[in-house]
Amino acid sequence: MLYEDVAAQIQKLIESGTYRVGERVPSLHALSRAFRVSVTTALSAYHLLESRGMIAPRPKSGYYVRPRFQEPQFQPSVPPPPSNPTSIGIFDRVMMVLRNMRDSKLVQLGTTGPPPEVLPLRKLRRVTSSVAFRNLGASFDYDAPPGCHLLRVQIARRSVMAGCVLRPDDVLTTCGGQEALSLGLRAICRPGDLVAVESPIFYGILLAMQELRLRVIELPSDSRSGLDLGALRTALRRHSIRAVVAMPTFNNPLGGCMPADKKKELVKMLAGRNIPLIEDDVYGEIFHGSERPEAAKSFDTKGLVLLCSSFSKTLSPGSRVGWIVPGRFTSAVRRLKIVSTLATPTLPQLAIAEFLAYGGYERHLRTLRKVTAMTLGHMAQAVRRSFPKGTRISTPAGGMALWVELPERADSLKLYDQALQSGITIAPGPIFSPRGRFRNFIRLSGGSSLEKIESAIATLGRLVAKF
Amino acid sequence: MLYEDVAAQIQKLIESGTYRVGERVPSLHALSRAFRVSVTTALSAYHLLESRGMIAPRPKSGYYVRPRFQEPQFQPSVPPPPSNPTSIGIFDRVMMVLRNMRDSKLVQLGTTGPPPEVLPLRKLRRVTSSVAFRNLGASFDYDAPPGCHLLRVQIARRSVMAGCVLRPDDVLTTCGGQEALSLGLRAICRPGDLVAVESPIFYGILLAMQELRLRVIELPSDSRSGLDLGALRTALRRHSIRAVVAMPTFNNPLGGCMPADKKKELVKMLAGRNIPLIEDDVYGEIFHGSERPEAAKSFDTKGLVLLCSSFSKTLSPGSRVGWIVPGRFTSAVRRLKIVSTLATPTLPQLAIAEFLAYGGYERHLRTLRKVTAMTLGHMAQAVRRSFPKGTRISTPAGGMALWVELPERADSLKLYDQALQSGITIAPGPIFSPRGRFRNFIRLSGGSSLEKIESAIATLGRLVAKF
Repeated sequence: MLYEDVAAQIQKLIESGTYRVGERVPSLHALSRAFRVSVTTALSAYHLLESRGMIAPRPKSGYYVRPRFQEPQFQPSVPPPPSNPTSIGIFDRVMMVLRNMRDSKLVQLGTTGPPPEVLPLRKLRRVTSSVAFRNLGASFDYDAPPGCHLLRVQIARRSVMAGCVLRPDDVLTTCGGQEALSLGLRAICRPGDLVAVESPIFYGILLAMQELRLRVIELPSDSRSGLDLGALRTALRRHSIRAVVAMPTFNNPLGGCMPADKKKELVKMLAGRNIPLIEDDVYGEIFHGSERPEAAKSFDTKGLVLLCSSFSKTLSPGSRVGWIVPGRFTSAVRRLKIVSTLATPTLPQLAIAEFLAYGGYERHLRTLRKVTAMTLGHMAQAVRRSFPKGTRISTPAGGMALWVELPERADSLKLYDQALQSGITIAPGPIFSPRGRFRNFIRLSGGSSLEKIESAIATLGRLVAKF
Repeated sequence: MLYEDVAAQIQKLIESGTYRVGERVPSLHALSRAFRVSVTTALSAYHLLESRGMIAPRPKSGYYVRPRFQEPQFQPSVPPPPSNPTSIGIFDRVMMVLRNMRDSKLVQLGTTGPPPEVLPLRKLRRVTSSVAFRNLGASFDYDAPPGCHLLRVQIARRSVMAGCVLRPDDVLTTCGGQEALSLGLRAICRPGDLVAVESPIFYGILLAMQELRLRVIELPSDSRSGLDLGALRTALRRHSIRAVVAMPTFNNPLGGCMPADKKKELVKMLAGRNIPLIEDDVYGEIFHGSERPEAAKSFDTKGLVLLCSSFSKTLSPGSRVGWIVPGRFTSAVRRLKIVSTLATPTLPQLAIAEFLAYGGYERHLRTLRKVTAMTLGHMAQAVRRSFPKGTRISTPAGGMALWVELPERADSLKLYDQALQSGITIAPGPIFSPRGRFRNFIRLSGGSSLEKIESAIATLGRLVAKF
């Protein structure tokens, strides 16, 4: 039997639903036994399916079925933003959404935190107690910026996997990723400055920019390859831009990843003009493919990229531990950190450092990635089943969300209200854009159980169909 | 024997050093037995000594020897500040001082944290573990603003002792007192605004104001009765002032307390002009007398006083848990909190709430107050022994520091460098003033053992004498 024939058989099994999105296909040994071919032939079959985008390998774990419908015509569209500067006016909408995000009586399809049942909370609790026992005084004493040295060593080590060569002293720990972004913005920008920002993008970034009274240029970004560099080039030519803000790896809500070459080009383009890039990499560790993509920071030779991230999406949202690698803005960021919060809480930093060093963080991340990819796969299938024709869904390469384009007549803000009455929260598209664009888009993410999610998505589908 | 005679005997014992500053004089029963007088007579004797400022009662604990030399001629002077607005330019000096504050090889007379041996760290650790066990998911989940409800209930309850009637929802928890101050300032002021600030005052407040590029009017304040309301009145008449910033209860570094009437007048004066008061009350619980003074906030009827405080001075500096009562600025402060740090760390808040509810916080505070007052009493005596003639020392009514005026030719910035070479850190006067005034002043506070402190003060005395 030829490897192409083996591949065709497996493809049929996937298409017929025997293996569903996010599930593992047979191991190479099982495949070779089942079809009586060599392991080499089995491997070639999987390589072929991989090249067709049907399956993807995960290290030390095997091959998994990838989300389908990756063809461009099924991807959400990229509505072109106006090219003129604007102020940001989404605060009240976001506050409305945030208010309902912590309500445990609602089915939460609107927040992108890791579901608690996937977090190693018992181990983290044990580590926290143990660290407090071994460092009694230190656990409750100030930890002046740049913050906990043990933790900065761990962060620097993990950054190697994103292609970054960092010393512990290049890293400054913060009260969560939001403080990292806020310090980075405040270190660079003054009220009224013009900033180019990927659109759509995480609303927390937009809120921080709105509070600083920045003007913005929206840069289009698509759900597979990220930021439109042509649009950036045009903006740089036309306007005096103070900084660029983007999520090159797994944009929230898009889920796409800029290819390494494109990241490199982005960094080079800005370096030539001495413009800083604020890179939010908070989902960098949540890749659905086989390896961690390089951060844009890895191409930074001039200290112009400010890498921001946190442990809120991977380990413990409530510990409020994040970090920033501020490059040439280190002294400004350190000053701002002191006037803003003086220091980052000590015990959570020590506990996370210990967990990273000895707690099996890598193993936990493998589980988290797998569960996240599977959940999103199931959610995508549920949307395809329940939503009206004309709906388009992203096929995220990483992160924790689906970006869904509804038929044009749908209004996601109205849908938000209607869904709330049915006990469901979603994230409406307009909160991801400075101008409140993406009116017929929603972001879906899954914190609840699969059954609840599927039933909630069915309800949403009925609501969308009514528009 | 008359009560005056009993008082005279005790006064002799104090003056001869039998009972030293900060130590307890005999109980009423012991006194009545020793002098064969009634307990009522003994009490009258102590009331007389109290009226002479020699002893002070502490609740449920007895009478203690007060620091002497309270006469005005021995108090630090109040150099009049220029009455015109200025910008703030002390950042680099403060950073220099902060750099050395965490160096455990130095004798730390420059920081005002509670000494770790006085903190109930073992109990706090036990409570932290226990809370994490009972609230596994919640301990590591986001705690969206206004923050931990259990903790806000406790804060509201304790505020009653400062004369404030607060609902839990009036309180918003923050990442330490510095975030409270920073959010308060940012909620009210725009860059370039003119703010009136008590001078001297905690440098962290000045740093936050410098970062916001505020202009300031310095208001003189003395080490016994605080802010000069006449100067404030003049400033209000001459300038358009956006806000007033002060520490009415135990100013850091002065240690004085505005009398309640004066606080009331301050609040009323500002209310009449609709000007907010940012009140830093971080030392309010560290009173050396018999009861907690009212906060200025207690006289606020218009929601114009923003009360800021934290647990960093009383329980756990590294937990970074503070709070703000933002009055009519609540929604602005909440927005700023979200864009700055999103949430305050959960587990430390839960642990502190539990400690306040069941951990013996009140008992711990009694010890902390006693130890602090005694340490400062001994330090004051050591300064009087070792420093040259012309030195003046504050007699703090609360807080954790002494404010020392050196002879006029002394330069505290040079002294800072020289002391550092002898392994000692101090806080030089200029970091407490927007203009870097108080060049011949230093703030002394004691985190180390009494022996180390006394020997370090002797060294300082020799250095000061050389000027």
